[in-house]
Amino acid sequence: MTESDLPVVQLTPGRWGDPAQTVEVPEAALAALKHLGVRRRGVVEGKEEPGAPDASAGAAEPGAARAVKPGSAREVKPGSAREVEPGSARAVERLAELLGSEWVSVDGDVRWAHTRGYSTPDLLRFRAGDTTGMPAAVVFPGSHEDVLAVLAACSELGVAVVPYAGGTSVVGGLAPDGEFVAVDLRRLDQVGELDEISRTVRLGAGLRGTAAEAALKPMGYTLGHFPQSYEGASIGGYAATRSSGQSSAGYGRFDQMVVGMTVATPRGTVELGRAPMSAAGPDLRQLWLGSEGALGIITSVVVRIRPRPAERFFEGWRFGSFAQGLDAIRRLAQDGPLPTVLRLSDEAETAVNLADPEVLGGASGVQAIVGFEGTATAVRRAAVAEVLADAGGEPLGEEAGETWRKGRYRAPYLRDPLLDEGALVETLETAGFWSKLPELKAAVTDALVKSLGDQGTPPLVLCHVSHVYETGASLYFTVVCAQAEDPVAQWRQAKTAASTAIGAAGGTITHHHGVGTDHRDAYAAEIGPLAIESLQAVKRVVDPENILSPGILLPEA
Amino acid sequence: MTESDLPVVQLTPGRWGDPAQTVEVPEAALAALKHLGVRRRGVVEGKEEPGAPDASAGAAEPGAARAVKPGSAREVKPGSAREVEPGSARAVERLAELLGSEWVSVDGDVRWAHTRGYSTPDLLRFRAGDTTGMPAAVVFPGSHEDVLAVLAACSELGVAVVPYAGGTSVVGGLAPDGEFVAVDLRRLDQVGELDEISRTVRLGAGLRGTAAEAALKPMGYTLGHFPQSYEGASIGGYAATRSSGQSSAGYGRFDQMVVGMTVATPRGTVELGRAPMSAAGPDLRQLWLGSEGALGIITSVVVRIRPRPAERFFEGWRFGSFAQGLDAIRRLAQDGPLPTVLRLSDEAETAVNLADPEVLGGASGVQAIVGFEGTATAVRRAAVAEVLADAGGEPLGEEAGETWRKGRYRAPYLRDPLLDEGALVETLETAGFWSKLPELKAAVTDALVKSLGDQGTPPLVLCHVSHVYETGASLYFTVVCAQAEDPVAQWRQAKTAASTAIGAAGGTITHHHGVGTDHRDAYAAEIGPLAIESLQAVKRVVDPENILSPGILLPEA
Repeated sequence: MTESDLPVVQLTPGRWGDPAQTVEVPEAALAALKHLGVRRRGVVEGKEEPGAPDASAGAAEPGAARAVKPGSAREVKPGSAREVEPGSARAVERLAELLGSEWVSVDGDVRWAHTRGYSTPDLLRFRAGDTTGMPAAVVFPGSHEDVLAVLAACSELGVAVVPYAGGTSVVGGLAPDGEFVAVDLRRLDQVGELDEISRTVRLGAGLRGTAAEAALKPMGYTLGHFPQSYEGASIGGYAATRSSGQSSAGYGRFDQMVVGMTVATPRGTVELGRAPMSAAGPDLRQLWLGSEGALGIITSVVVRIRPRPAERFFEGWRFGSFAQGLDAIRRLAQDGPLPTVLRLSDEAETAVNLADPEVLGGASGVQAIVGFEGTATAVRRAAVAEVLADAGGEPLGEEAGETWRKGRYRAPYLRDPLLDEGALVETLETAGFWSKLPELKAAVTDALVKSLGDQGTPPLVLCHVSHVYETGASLYFTVVCAQAEDPVAQWRQAKTAASTAIGAAGGTITHHHGVGTDHRDAYAAEIGPLAIESLQAVKRVVDPENILSPGILLPEA
Repeated sequence: MTESDLPVVQLTPGRWGDPAQTVEVPEAALAALKHLGVRRRGVVEGKEEPGAPDASAGAAEPGAARAVKPGSAREVKPGSAREVEPGSARAVERLAELLGSEWVSVDGDVRWAHTRGYSTPDLLRFRAGDTTGMPAAVVFPGSHEDVLAVLAACSELGVAVVPYAGGTSVVGGLAPDGEFVAVDLRRLDQVGELDEISRTVRLGAGLRGTAAEAALKPMGYTLGHFPQSYEGASIGGYAATRSSGQSSAGYGRFDQMVVGMTVATPRGTVELGRAPMSAAGPDLRQLWLGSEGALGIITSVVVRIRPRPAERFFEGWRFGSFAQGLDAIRRLAQDGPLPTVLRLSDEAETAVNLADPEVLGGASGVQAIVGFEGTATAVRRAAVAEVLADAGGEPLGEEAGETWRKGRYRAPYLRDPLLDEGALVETLETAGFWSKLPELKAAVTDALVKSLGDQGTPPLVLCHVSHVYETGASLYFTVVCAQAEDPVAQWRQAKTAASTAIGAAGGTITHHHGVGTDHRDAYAAEIGPLAIESLQAVKRVVDPENILSPGILLPEA
């Protein structure tokens, strides 16, 4: 089974993934969690399953519901609308005139289904029934022109809007401060005419990644973009957040795949991309890619596509240490050849991932995963193997690779039952230049260990590299510890410490999660006041009433 | 001899290249020009050599002179200063206080040496002694802090500035409308500490490309950036104009080499680039790359470097037609392997380039040049050869490749004697997606033939592809015809027709020459009013008094 065979599922809000699939925490993991002091909290054990998914939630028609944990502090009864504020009430009336009333919803269930994303704090707030961040209404425009009309109307009425497609943000990218209308892009799911000569196709922003692959498969093409959010994320979200997928070594980042784009703003359309590359001023595609809804709503993109690979092959490699493995993958990133997938776990992540340490031949060390897609993969595989062996690696064979491949979308599924068990599980990531990575990794780990240790919940911190470039790479951290009394505040404190450490060590605040509201302050510190003011000035041009995702990405001017 | 062995020469203003080298127009070419109606004009034959280069011009010390054609309409006597305007007089005093008087020049020769660039209209204006576009003063800041101080002072005094480094603009990028001070960056020529782990180095904006290669050579590295302006162009110019070199297939464009940058603006410093890639908002490096001095002066960049290639190999290939060759190079661009250099001339350019048609084995058709650099080039060469042969190509061997390699920086040298002979010679370029290239090429050719034909000077139009991407490629046109009475106006009319054709056929107005003043209107049409307003808004943030290269890149707000 390949990515294009995965079903197009509507995520169950508040709980990750295809509701048809369930994951149980392995017994060994439960034992390990006990060592971290993890205990079930809040609910009487065995009495209820908090936040149980509703399989009908978020279906293609409006009216989807998020199940709400009964007895929560601020309960929202599914089906009942929270009172719509006067400003929004006018907007709802106006938007219904524009789109037809069937495409404008103030239903409580629909609005709850569009509340926040999938960070651990989001899931915890969901479980607590916290309705902050809930849109006043949800609209479902059917075309670029609809989006233009919605933005013009909301601008006139002074009503904030936030684009919503996959809804998989893990950085607070869907919940601005204050009242807002969610613009659900699911109807913008067109697959445009294929340009087989140029190998490009136009895709609607609301198209799911899974749906895009399913549509391209019979034509013989693939995007090759497979982030861990693949089962839920959308084309527009990929573009607006500069997503990077697990096959980035071979296929590149999503911002490298986009060659053209159409953006709706309150003042009209921005259309970019006459050529793959140009010297006609700055590459403005790169101004709207990563703009997270703050500079307009990307309604479609023209993307580079590639022929579907004839062969796929994944294998594991062992290195004596993370430092040795880092040196090895750097050689591939700098001198090639590059495999399609290249990942390196540190000692802690290797130990946790491998229930059976015999995979490493009983030896200590770290595991790398190397994947190949395309034609004649055997030649590249042999060349890569030569480099890795020369750098001290030992081949672990195809089984280790296949284990990773089969489990690669499972990690987020595991988070929900871990939260149920009373564990706090969250991830964060950064990137930097090769020479700074060891220091950056140590600084972030130390900050997390210190902050959570000081709070009485010493963590396990795992790390891997999953995106490599000639001059540097990403670092992805997974943190597990016991939940404190207020786990949202607990994580906020730890995250702030980690963000400060990233800044001090010269890394970027995010390699592929985006900025949202969570990273807004760190982002402002990273790029500096003149760059922030520059973006705010662009925002004033396209969005003079400041209705586009206020407070997301950019601090208020 | 490789690029790093080329001498660091100061270009002779008004005439291209190393003054120690001379080029004569081949007899066969002179005969061909006669067919186009080309006749020597203006000067009595044999009496004088117009615009003879002065070998001392533009040396490292201020005081360089441009030779001026005696008897021209508006003669500037070298050594005599044109009267400095009152606004500038205050600025000169203030700048001398800031930098020391030895680094501020109002000398006529120095100012004349900083007047305009190297487009054919620029050369024609030079020959006519046209002093429009001459700076009121030239300053030579010695550091980023000096540039900041210069910009702050000029902003306070309301004096426009234009950065000047290599001075090789061919799009009017050095001559804004109105009075201005040229900021010559030649003293910003540092080569920072090498980061061998990350393979990066910081280079000053005023460093010549030749000097950068000479500095990197003993360390074992290269940038691999070799535009045709290589003998004169600078690192800062590469960055500010999104330059692309002859080895772009292997080394990428300059904007892909830049991983970090420091920009001076009237309001302070912008410092970008914490990681090779990031999802922390839009990639703002791409907002300042290509900003052509309008959004600040790039004072240094951190660039990716690569080990110097162990081997180099160039060869020629013949295809039956441009269409067949285009299909062949597209296969390499899309499915690989990519050589380091990949160029394809059309039928007309092939015929003109090859004095000896026997190179094509006496057959008609077009020539491609394929170059390899690196290690184990034989393997890649064999794989490329297989693709090209499969696409209908016939190998022409190494001699054709070496002929191109040896002559690759000679073309601009030939322009000056051709102008002396009464020919109008100029180039223009565009890029587009593969499926649109044939139409784009035909549209531009037709527009040039029609416009110049209507003016009574039917042209020869040559074309090649020299930069390829997965989804498209560049098109580079060379135009030769007889000079009309007013050759500047003659070319303006032809260029406008070509630009209109590019826009209508969906191409970009420039692939690697930049916007300057020449492409400003076409650029505004290409990206649309909201994008232009967005850039103008950024400009107002960093440059509230609008002193940075006013009228270059952006129309006045």
